[in-house]
Order: sequence, then structure tokens, then C-alpha cells
Amino acid sequence: MVFASIITIGDELLIGQVVDTNSAWMARTLNANGIWLKRRVAVGDNSADIIRALDEESREADIILITGGLGPTADDITKPVLCEYFGGKLVVNEDALNNVKAIFAKLAKDRPILERNLKQAEVPDTCTVIHNGRGTAPGMWFEKNGKIYVSMPGVPHEMQGMMTDSVIPKLGNYFKMPFILHRTLVTAGIGESALAEHIIHWESALPKNIKLAYLPNYGMVRLRLTGSSDEKEMLDKVLDVQFASLTNLVSEWLVTDKDQTLQQVIGELMVARKKTLSTAESCTGGYIAHLLTAEAGSSAYYQGGVVSYSNHVKENMLNVSHDTLITDGAVSEHTVIQMVKGGLSRLQTDYCVAVSGIMGPGGGSEAKPVGTVWIAAGSAERIETQKFSFRFNRQRNIELTANAALNLLRKVVLSGG
Amino acid sequence: MVFASIITIGDELLIGQVVDTNSAWMARTLNANGIWLKRRVAVGDNSADIIRALDEESREADIILITGGLGPTADDITKPVLCEYFGGKLVVNEDALNNVKAIFAKLAKDRPILERNLKQAEVPDTCTVIHNGRGTAPGMWFEKNGKIYVSMPGVPHEMQGMMTDSVIPKLGNYFKMPFILHRTLVTAGIGESALAEHIIHWESALPKNIKLAYLPNYGMVRLRLTGSSDEKEMLDKVLDVQFASLTNLVSEWLVTDKDQTLQQVIGELMVARKKTLSTAESCTGGYIAHLLTAEAGSSAYYQGGVVSYSNHVKENMLNVSHDTLITDGAVSEHTVIQMVKGGLSRLQTDYCVAVSGIMGPGGGSEAKPVGTVWIAAGSAERIETQKFSFRFNRQRNIELTANAALNLLRKVVLSGG
Repeated sequence: MVFASIITIGDELLIGQVVDTNSAWMARTLNANGIWLKRRVAVGDNSADIIRALDEESREADIILITGGLGPTADDITKPVLCEYFGGKLVVNEDALNNVKAIFAKLAKDRPILERNLKQAEVPDTCTVIHNGRGTAPGMWFEKNGKIYVSMPGVPHEMQGMMTDSVIPKLGNYFKMPFILHRTLVTAGIGESALAEHIIHWESALPKNIKLAYLPNYGMVRLRLTGSSDEKEMLDKVLDVQFASLTNLVSEWLVTDKDQTLQQVIGELMVARKKTLSTAESCTGGYIAHLLTAEAGSSAYYQGGVVSYSNHVKENMLNVSHDTLITDGAVSEHTVIQMVKGGLSRLQTDYCVAVSGIMGPGGGSEAKPVGTVWIAAGSAERIETQKFSFRFNRQRNIELTANAALNLLRKVVLSGG
Repeated sequence: MVFASIITIGDELLIGQVVDTNSAWMARTLNANGIWLKRRVAVGDNSADIIRALDEESREADIILITGGLGPTADDITKPVLCEYFGGKLVVNEDALNNVKAIFAKLAKDRPILERNLKQAEVPDTCTVIHNGRGTAPGMWFEKNGKIYVSMPGVPHEMQGMMTDSVIPKLGNYFKMPFILHRTLVTAGIGESALAEHIIHWESALPKNIKLAYLPNYGMVRLRLTGSSDEKEMLDKVLDVQFASLTNLVSEWLVTDKDQTLQQVIGELMVARKKTLSTAESCTGGYIAHLLTAEAGSSAYYQGGVVSYSNHVKENMLNVSHDTLITDGAVSEHTVIQMVKGGLSRLQTDYCVAVSGIMGPGGGSEAKPVGTVWIAAGSAERIETQKFSFRFNRQRNIELTANAALNLLRKVVLSGG
């Protein structure tokens, strides 16, 4: 097996002001290409810490991917440290210099090229430059004691472009990668422990090169089978057989037998049935609409929505009756049913999903504590409702409510409602 | 100084199926309490890798915080490994057992307690149990060779509860922490390099115990001053002086002199001026509404919004004229101006912000390529517009559009529009 390690450089990660999304993307990309990520480590903008990480990560990994610390400002020290570590001296690379100039000519005509922008074209003369198609900082490819080191900028889309266009293809020239294949399904309505109990005999009989992982989130559990082998066809077949057994075992709770989000499942359902969809959100404040429209192509079925945060918007934009808001309150079954009906008629769609609840930290009462949520989903034919009592913080309550609502919608659509 | 290190355990992190948000939260919390996070490392569910990480991280850190790998399913091996590493044997802890039973009684009355749930109450007899107020897996506190090790579940809200309620207070009994203080401001409309050039003389004269970090994101640059000292009052004063100079130097581009998001700045403006706000979103699909309503207390000023993904929703819900959509198109200055006007009148607010654009990957044309965005913000008195050409992927285009729109809104409100 080919092993990789990721070193992320930057004080901002150790202060916690930035969430590291790069590592997850890189892990997925490595994995899809048969490279097993062994470890990832984050260190600060500090010479000794960077050198220690380079030493340690090269011990078990064949490939060390380094991100961050290549910006043009004074807190970035990665390049001099790499120059020290791999030897050589900093020299201006002509290709990198032309790239800086071209990017300024295209995107920042009004801005002068500063000395420190030009300095970005300087690299250790012991590296091979990796072209950055999306920014000014070049990538650097080093080789030392049979290990490969690649340094890339921390800006996500720049790093992603480099990985896809240059690093992964180039690694293919050095290593014969084993095939790593995944099969993923998603369940809802059963806890992680009960699920494990339910499939215990099947799991314990899995072949050695196939692993099962439980990934619970937002009230759902994602099950992922991972196999590795040098024989792609054989692996494919073995995984298919095991995955079919698993799918069959959990069919009662199955949301999808693909590695999909709930909003992707709904998108597929809408496209297949040529149906349209709208949203009517109070407590999720546009988050359900955002999840749906984050998918490319969602305009084929998603028509739009109303974020009805205040009661007068519920009345004026979604036809919720004033009396219901007074007698039942905004967080009630009657209100969400009327929100669905209002969404269907005002936004002219086949389906609508609606939510109303109290996300916290304020706004709760004895009768309706923080976490109380009503959801409804349906069509002109049928509307289903569900009540929840979540007990988390605002952000998580919003996420759980959105997923519960999308799952109810999925069930209603599937049952032909 | 007191140094900490974080070890995150779980194959799901090395496959990239999960983004690690725990580390950023822990880093912020440690930092606020005067503990400097030195490194963070992620390893898989593998005994040798976990033990190597325990050895290496204890070399420079005083405190090693471990998360993940404590779930009830078969891929979780952390507890036996800790038992091996710290010695002792796994025994049922009475407090932890009562906690498992209490949580099932309260939250899962309909579900049976399984053997593997009860096993969660087993801990090495060499640890002190940390109470988990939000879940069944207990935390474990170990001490070895003068170092402290704390193992916590990976579920974010469980880990956060333990850190806040138990771990941080308990660490205070062991270490005299230095004071670490931050001052943060946010700029917009100037690049990282030009900003660095502008403040170069001030930055190079900073005292040794004060560091400046540049945190660019979404077209804005966040500048953070960090100082550390045993003398809190003195540090506070020195930071105040330096921060006042910095704020003055960048006043032209200043968005806020607090560690805030743009939506928090807007929330403060709305509350201070007793104004209300609505949104009219096409291409951002509810993301602006989501950002605004993610803030607790936003219902005081945010009334609601329309996600007008299709043209008929733009017409029916926001009064955009059919002629404009035909002659100018949905992505045009006239359309976003009419969307603001429609939002103001239909949602009855003082301000409204509107966006329309092409986020990609599909939907572009020669005249209006992917990334073309029109935004507008204003009141009954005045509406301002702006055009952008973003060049990123769908997700980033959505984020950049949302931030550009909120920043335009901020300027319009500030200028008394």
C-alpha cells in the first residue's frame, strides 16, 4: 500500500479561527486514487515545528502533502523552512513569475504588483514547480530519501486545482497504487448501536480486506464498506456481494444505497418524476433552501421558497390564518400544514416542505421549550406532519430540523403522496 | 507557557468523509484559557497508530486531548488501546453506568439498552471518569509522567459539554496559565498583500510578545493581534495601544473592529437603529437568509425573505416585471433593483438585500458567463447596486456573493440610505 500524510501549516488552525476543510477534501481525493492517508498533522508558523513534522511524517508515509503558509504576508515562513530542509537557495522561477504577472493582468488590473507579490515566484532551486492555475503562489515538488513532498497553498480552490491537474497524475508515475473501493448507504430511524446489533453476524464474517465504518450524523447513520486489493475486478465483485447483503439487512431503514446527501436523493426523485418543489421555512431560516440549491442542477425542480421568520410574513406570503397563529401559535401542526398549502399555491409547485420551531437559545416556554419543532411535507393530495423535541444548540437544531424535514418529504414522495 | 496537543481518532477523518470541526472549537477554547495548542494530529482506528500518537504528542505538550473512537460499535478501539497504554483493566464504572441508564430512561424509552450500550460504562481502572452530561460515553482523565491525557467522545456537543463543565476547570488546578489575549478587526476592499504593504512599518515595530495574523476569506481580510503575558493588565494596555494604531491605519477599509461576522455587524446596526430587514435571493438560494438567522436574536430585525429561484416566483412573490425578465434577463441590474423594491413592499421591511447570478457549473452564456452576479441593497429612500464576476466553483461563488451582498447592505445602512 502507498501511504500519505498531510501537514497543514498555520497558526490560524491552532487558534481555531479557521476550520480545516482542506484535509477532508485531500483525504477523499487520495483515497479515490488508491493512496491511504495514514495521518494528518497541523502545526503553527514556526520553523522548528515544521521541521519536526517533516521528519516525523516521512517516517511511515511515502508521500507528504503540505498545505498553507505560502501567502505573501509576514506570518508565512514555510518557503524559507523548506529551503533549509531540502537544501538549495531561493531563486526566481520564470514560469511562476509569468503566472503572477498574468494573474494580475487578468484579475487585478487596477492593483499594482507589489514586491511581495513578485517574491511569490521565488522557490528553492531544489524543487520542481507545480503550476498554480488559480493563484499566484506556486506549488513545490521535492524528493528526498525516496519520499515525495509536495507543498501547496492553503487556499482551497488553488490547492484543489493543483491536486487534480498536477499532483495526482504525477504521483501515478511513481507508485503502483492498490485499488480502494467504497460502497456507502444511508439509514434513518435507527440508532448506531441498534444498527450494529442488527448486523453483527454479517459484520463479523467480513473478509479481512473489507472494513465497515459507522458514520452517524443528523439523526442518520451512514454505513461505508471499504475494500482494498490489487485485483480491481475481484474486489468489485466481492464488495457487490457484501453490499447487497448489507442493503438487504437494513432495508427497513434505508434512505439511499449510494453515497449521497438527502438533498441529492430528493433531487433525483424530483427529476425522475418530473415534479417541482418549494420550501416554507420559519426556524431553519433558509437553510433547507440552501441545502437544496447547493446542488448543481437544482433549478430543474426547485422553484423557490419563503423564509417566514415573522408572523406577518407567514400570513401575507403563505396564507397562514391569523386565527391559527393566535390560537395554536406559530409552532404548531396547524401552522405548518397551512405553510405547506400556502407554499403549494403561492409558489405553484407539486410538493412543499415546511418547518416551524424554536431553535434557541431564547424563545422557549414551558409549553413549547427550546427544541420544539413541527414539520410538514406534502402535495395537493396529502400532507404528512411530524413533531420533534431536539435538545442541542441553535446550529445543530437547525441542521437536525432541516434533515428531518427533507426525510419526511422523501417518504411522502416515495409513498406517492 | 502551557502547551496542549489534540489527537483525533477515526478512519472517517482519513477517508475524508467527515470535516473535523472539533479541533477548531477545542483550539479556541484552549486559547481563551491561556493554553497554547502546539499541534493537532489525526490518526485512524488502529492500535499502533494511536500509541505512536500518544508517545509523540506527549513529547512537547503538557496536556493531550483525545477525541473520537468511543462509540459503541465495532470500529471503535480507543478504550482497549488506552487501557493497554496506561495500564490497568477495564471495569464497569458505577457513575458512568447510571448515566447510560438515565439517558436511555430520558431519551430513548422505546429503545432497549443493549449490551454494547452498557459496555460504554466500562473504563480503565487507572482513569478518573469525566461525566458526560449529553451522551452515554464517559470521558477519561489519565496522568502519566507528569502529563495529563483526557479522552472524550467525538460527538461535538458531548465533547464541548465535557470541556466546558469539567476539563477546563480541572486543568486550572494543575497549571498556572499565562494570559493570551486577542484583538481582531475585519477589512474589505483591499487585498492581503496591499494591506501588508500598507502597515509594514507598524507591523515590524510590534513588541516580541505580540503577533499579527492575516486571515483572508470571502473577499475580506481579518487581522488578528495576539499577545501573551503573565501580566494581564499590562498586556491589555499594550494591546489596546497597538490595536488603536492598527485600526487607525486601516480605517478606510474597516468593516468592524471586533471579532465578528458580517451578519453580526448587520444585526448590531439593525438593533441600534431599530430597523427591519428582508432578503430576496435567487442564486444564493437561501444562504443569505441562513447566515442572518444563524445568529441568535435575529428575529428582532429579520422578518423573512423570498428565495426566487424560478422566474415565476420573481414575478409572483417579488413583483419583478415580466418585461424586465424578458428584455434584461433574470441576472441584471433592473431585476435586482425590482427584487429589492418587491422585498421592501411585500415583506414590509425598512431594508432589503437582493441577489441574482449564475453560480455554475451550468447556466452560463457568452454575454453572462458563470460567475456573473448582480446585487442590490437599499430602502425606500435609496437602492445601491453592484456587479461581480466571480470565477470559482458553485459553493464558493455562493459564499462570495452572500458576503458581497451583506457588505453592500452594511454600507447602504451606514451611509443612512
